Amino acid sequence: VTPPAAGRSRTTWRLPGAPAPSVSQSHTADIPLEPGAARIAVDLLGGDDAPDVVVDGALRALGADPDLHLLLVGPAVVADRLFGLLDAPDRIRVSAHAMRHGVRMSDAPARASRPDTTVRAAVTAVAEGRADAVVSAGSTAATVTAAALGLGRLPGVRRPALAATLPAASGPVVLIDVGGSLEARPGTLARHAALGVAFAAVAHAVERPRVGLLSVGTESGKGDRARRASDPVLARCSLPAGARYVGQVEGYELATGDHVDVVVTDGFTGNVLLKAIEAAYAMAGGPPAGGGTPRAAALLGVAGTVVVCHGAALADDIASGIALAAHLHRRAASAAITALLADQTGALPSDIEVTT
Amino acid sequence: VTPPAAGRSRTTWRLPGAPAPSVSQSHTADIPLEPGAARIAVDLLGGDDAPDVVVDGALRALGADPDLHLLLVGPAVVADRLFGLLDAPDRIRVSAHAMRHGVRMSDAPARASRPDTTVRAAVTAVAEGRADAVVSAGSTAATVTAAALGLGRLPGVRRPALAATLPAASGPVVLIDVGGSLEARPGTLARHAALGVAFAAVAHAVERPRVGLLSVGTESGKGDRARRASDPVLARCSLPAGARYVGQVEGYELATGDHVDVVVTDGFTGNVLLKAIEAAYAMAGGPPAGGGTPRAAALLGVAGTVVVCHGAALADDIASGIALAAHLHRRAASAAITALLADQTGALPSDIEVTT
Repeated sequence: VTPPAAGRSRTTWRLPGAPAPSVSQSHTADIPLEPGAARIAVDLLGGDDAPDVVVDGALRALGADPDLHLLLVGPAVVADRLFGLLDAPDRIRVSAHAMRHGVRMSDAPARASRPDTTVRAAVTAVAEGRADAVVSAGSTAATVTAAALGLGRLPGVRRPALAATLPAASGPVVLIDVGGSLEARPGTLARHAALGVAFAAVAHAVERPRVGLLSVGTESGKGDRARRASDPVLARCSLPAGARYVGQVEGYELATGDHVDVVVTDGFTGNVLLKAIEAAYAMAGGPPAGGGTPRAAALLGVAGTVVVCHGAALADDIASGIALAAHLHRRAASAAITALLADQTGALPSDIEVTT
Repeated sequence: VTPPAAGRSRTTWRLPGAPAPSVSQSHTADIPLEPGAARIAVDLLGGDDAPDVVVDGALRALGADPDLHLLLVGPAVVADRLFGLLDAPDRIRVSAHAMRHGVRMSDAPARASRPDTTVRAAVTAVAEGRADAVVSAGSTAATVTAAALGLGRLPGVRRPALAATLPAASGPVVLIDVGGSLEARPGTLARHAALGVAFAAVAHAVERPRVGLLSVGTESGKGDRARRASDPVLARCSLPAGARYVGQVEGYELATGDHVDVVVTDGFTGNVLLKAIEAAYAMAGGPPAGGGTPRAAALLGVAGTVVVCHGAALADDIASGIALAAHLHRRAASAAITALLADQTGALPSDIEVTT
């Protein structure tokens, strides 16, 4: 019997990578830094305004976190330019095509001038133990592919998912997927539900997370074909972290969090949703105090820590993504999520099974 | 050759049914009333808080519009209660199961106590010429079905669509579909694009509307399978009202309107999007001045004027929906949209062709 447990940790939940607070606050001021060094590989070519905003964001992240070390990965021509910009060289290394100016740069493959090659080089740095996590604002598809190939996928996961944390009135709500995998397949949504509740438990300390399927109504049977097929699959799932499926939920839950801690949807819907909410806040003159949309998302389902900022990221977004990556590394989130999932693999439908 | 025309009327565009202004303003104060009587059939049982908020909304609508006449449609037990509430009986009639208290009530079928029967009775009032338009906050599916059966569908339209107007920074943006038809099929999206541009031209006086397909990126090829199939279909379409397809657009456009006047998506995505944006504004302390989310949507593709308010509608939402219905009737919007579509039927793929 499942008692009506709290469903949500009431502790302060803001974490690096969380939505930006109102403009009057520093975006990292109220986040207690956790101890321990974190070495983050940053994709210099990721994002519409790369590399300038990436470098700017990297410097801001360094200024806010004395135990942070960055490995900036990019082509030689970009690496060269950095020497005129950096003022904290002892905690920054630059990884580029060839040795120049005495900086180590063995990481990137030969044709690192293409953005997807750069993110692959950043992932390789993690795979080889030279960095603890990757941050990129480049193409999501390229990052997902690079991470899946370079770090491997968790057992039973074919399609990694991006998890973004939104501030709801009563606490954090994890929205998964926001663009990792675009098709709505029941097996994929069930697997992503498992990843989402593991993330909520590990990254936000939510006990017994409540997970809901985003749809156009709360009653079973309301929704498109994919939702009608997915709802019973989710209802049968055995989920990790003591999570429970609460059924279908509507878009309102992303702001209220009244009934869920984790909202599951396909990456197409999650992506357009996140961008529309973000633009709505921008139109309203900025995000509400303590609210707004997340500035970075965690890639779940791969064997390592990968954070994606969106393509239009500004320097603060990059800094926030780096801080999220450092936070997840210090919490050993990747290993903890992997362990939670390992107990459940047999009970979950694999997302490799394709249903359309 | 298509010249780079303005794409958007710069005239004041707020119309009944538009998003609520900030709380300090009356929601109808700045809308110039158009001349002419409008007789609106209102579904008394539609909405989570029916019939109370429906009656309250009806009275507010009457107070704001001296040429408005309402036909409130509901079961006898509800009609009875109304006599104690109404203070403008000369412009309100109540339609119920059986004759009571001298009120005409021949409209509803025998088993009108079920909400979907009530909306059917309201649609019948329009079909029989006793009302000019229908407003319901009941089940969208029931309203769409009742309207399609009772009023008929436009040629080439199998799946009617709900169009909602969002306030973008530079003018109105029509989002279609927000819940009329939930599956993303290329033929349906193309037909809905045609309906959306006709609506933008007729209801918002947008010249040569620009229409975009909502996706996760602007480049062709970005998106899920349905979007990749729909983008080339839309690119080949001949659209009414001198409209042009601008390609894929992202969620940001709903707030900026920089590149589009009409955003096309499937009803599932549009519905969750609208609710999430609405809840985000609520969390931010209310919609921005002149902004927010629309309180009512127009059902397009049926041969008549039908307005849908969402299930959680409050009295002001109902009043706004009634005002939108009156506005569309006075503009003869249904006939104008039908005429615009009639010229294009041959050039558009029918949405009856199913592609999944």
